[in-house]
Amino acid sequence: MPAPFAPLIETLPSSVPFVGPEALERRTGAGFRARLGANENVFGPSPKAIEAMRAAAPEMWRYCDPENHELRHALALHLGVSPANVMVGEGIDGLFGYAVRLFVEPGVTVATSRGAYPTFNFHVQGYGGRLVMAPYVEDREDPASLLELARKENARLIYFANPDNPMGGWWEAEAVARMIAAVPPGALLMLDEAYGEFAPPGTLPPLDIENEQVLRFRTFSKAYGLAGMRLGYCIGHERVIGAFDKIRNHFGVTRMGQAGGVAALADQDYLNQVVRQVADAREEIARIARSLGLMPLPSAANFVAIDLGRDGAYARRVLEALAAAGIFVRMPGVEPLNRCIRITAGSAEDLRILAAELPAALKATL
Amino acid sequence: MPAPFAPLIETLPSSVPFVGPEALERRTGAGFRARLGANENVFGPSPKAIEAMRAAAPEMWRYCDPENHELRHALALHLGVSPANVMVGEGIDGLFGYAVRLFVEPGVTVATSRGAYPTFNFHVQGYGGRLVMAPYVEDREDPASLLELARKENARLIYFANPDNPMGGWWEAEAVARMIAAVPPGALLMLDEAYGEFAPPGTLPPLDIENEQVLRFRTFSKAYGLAGMRLGYCIGHERVIGAFDKIRNHFGVTRMGQAGGVAALADQDYLNQVVRQVADAREEIARIARSLGLMPLPSAANFVAIDLGRDGAYARRVLEALAAAGIFVRMPGVEPLNRCIRITAGSAEDLRILAAELPAALKATL
Repeated sequence: MPAPFAPLIETLPSSVPFVGPEALERRTGAGFRARLGANENVFGPSPKAIEAMRAAAPEMWRYCDPENHELRHALALHLGVSPANVMVGEGIDGLFGYAVRLFVEPGVTVATSRGAYPTFNFHVQGYGGRLVMAPYVEDREDPASLLELARKENARLIYFANPDNPMGGWWEAEAVARMIAAVPPGALLMLDEAYGEFAPPGTLPPLDIENEQVLRFRTFSKAYGLAGMRLGYCIGHERVIGAFDKIRNHFGVTRMGQAGGVAALADQDYLNQVVRQVADAREEIARIARSLGLMPLPSAANFVAIDLGRDGAYARRVLEALAAAGIFVRMPGVEPLNRCIRITAGSAEDLRILAAELPAALKATL
Repeated sequence: MPAPFAPLIETLPSSVPFVGPEALERRTGAGFRARLGANENVFGPSPKAIEAMRAAAPEMWRYCDPENHELRHALALHLGVSPANVMVGEGIDGLFGYAVRLFVEPGVTVATSRGAYPTFNFHVQGYGGRLVMAPYVEDREDPASLLELARKENARLIYFANPDNPMGGWWEAEAVARMIAAVPPGALLMLDEAYGEFAPPGTLPPLDIENEQVLRFRTFSKAYGLAGMRLGYCIGHERVIGAFDKIRNHFGVTRMGQAGGVAALADQDYLNQVVRQVADAREEIARIARSLGLMPLPSAANFVAIDLGRDGAYARRVLEALAAAGIFVRMPGVEPLNRCIRITAGSAEDLRILAAELPAALKATL
């Protein structure tokens, strides 16, 4: 007898948002020499976070604290809000899944930008939501277009990333604050600030935990270098934050991640050093691009989108040539963004390999 | 403006399935001397798993492999099935959430036993399912009662744990195989075998990955001693296992957990040693109970339910007296199971503390 799937499940595709670099390595049988595709932090987590995790390893027979008390309280202190305004989850991806579930049921409309974060769309579709998309404007997610679309389509959720992925663009805090103020009644803004620590001062608007219509998403996966530990957090009104408890996997975050996250957060000197290293790497990627006659886009994140000046098929071929040369890179999925390839801020050695291989990759595809 | 929650969310309670021992410690301001309430494995994970996690710590800037390739393949080899028959997730709790979502939509009926695992019920309610409950029979979950209820109520999911939690009872493999064979058309059996490694040989029926109507759930949280790393797995027909990819958080399992899980699975000698230590601890808990005139229930898990011979209010008071003496223990939530307290297989020192404190806890409440 067949398994009795719910009708919605039967309609969903089996496609997954991202193929991991390990899967690509298994296909080719060769390891990547430079891992520059997933916007990981190649400079790694704070040595204090590594030490905290090593010290915690023998304690892993104990369940995690389902309240994430220590990490949540440390975050609250760091952010100047109450612990009741902070929810910790299994990466921003995990929190997106919960947040979408809180607001979306079949038929509910959700507004995002065409080419923005695919995993958010995956969750919306997974709960039967109806996605509507505004275009990027001058390679940035566009608040005015998103708000207009949301009003016209009666969207219940609006997704906006600042800085943006995959293009790296950003808006100043004042523009984002105006967007927040203009969220229509009956809608909620999911503001993805995963790359916020890399952005120039004045990019992130002040937190306003009195506003029930906005959720801010941040992560330990990028600037804090703990992508492998799956630690994201979400900041908002306590009524909205409290609602996660109705549905989340309370024991979803690891005890090890809790230990690593607390130690990483406490080491802001290391964070500041990483942010400087990332800024230097962005400059070097831009220099490599320009030296080959290519256009690097301005970025406030830990990657640079390089405009190759042709179409998506060409960019795809360059990507494949780079992969064949041992360099893992990704690219935007839709026009016109897919004229670009997106390169993560790498180590000096990573970028030396990139500089050596990119010219051939650009030519091999002629 | 209020946040625009989906109507189902507004109906859900904010209560959580379990309060963690850390939360209890924060309330009293004192740490527990013996942690015997969450059926953790106090003997800890394999030293090889600890070493693997320590070695992996500096690599945590990398995302996990979303396919869980190494762990899934190691499990498949260990189990004698294909990797396509195994799904790894954020603990059994996380997999329960996904599995319920695959089958339950508002109004769908789900059958379980009154007093069985609360987190399963939490997920069913969270997706709008309608729970119906069969009674325990002679302190065991009862296959015949569950099947009859499922048929009568047209249940789409049936939950059954073997060995059972919180009572520790079990059925022989033949009885479970008969239950599997009798699952009604249009239904699926979720068979929770979290404690399977502790059970006598002949408790777990053979895997049958041709059957679309059963999913088997197992974990690294119990016998493998990695509760803090959130690693569960699920075995079934490849069509059902494949459906998890439609909805799961693909990057939900940590890279550290993947490393620890592979190493723990490879160390079966250590596992066997732990299983013996747990069996000895069960005997010691039973001896302590009998020495006080109490009745220990037979257990195939890493805990023993002790029948205190009175009502739930009395058991609750004993529990609180134990907590005041620094011993963390839990108890079943419903009658008539709640005449018992449930004590995890502890270390020799844990059980020495238990033996010393239990007599006073029993008396203090008179």
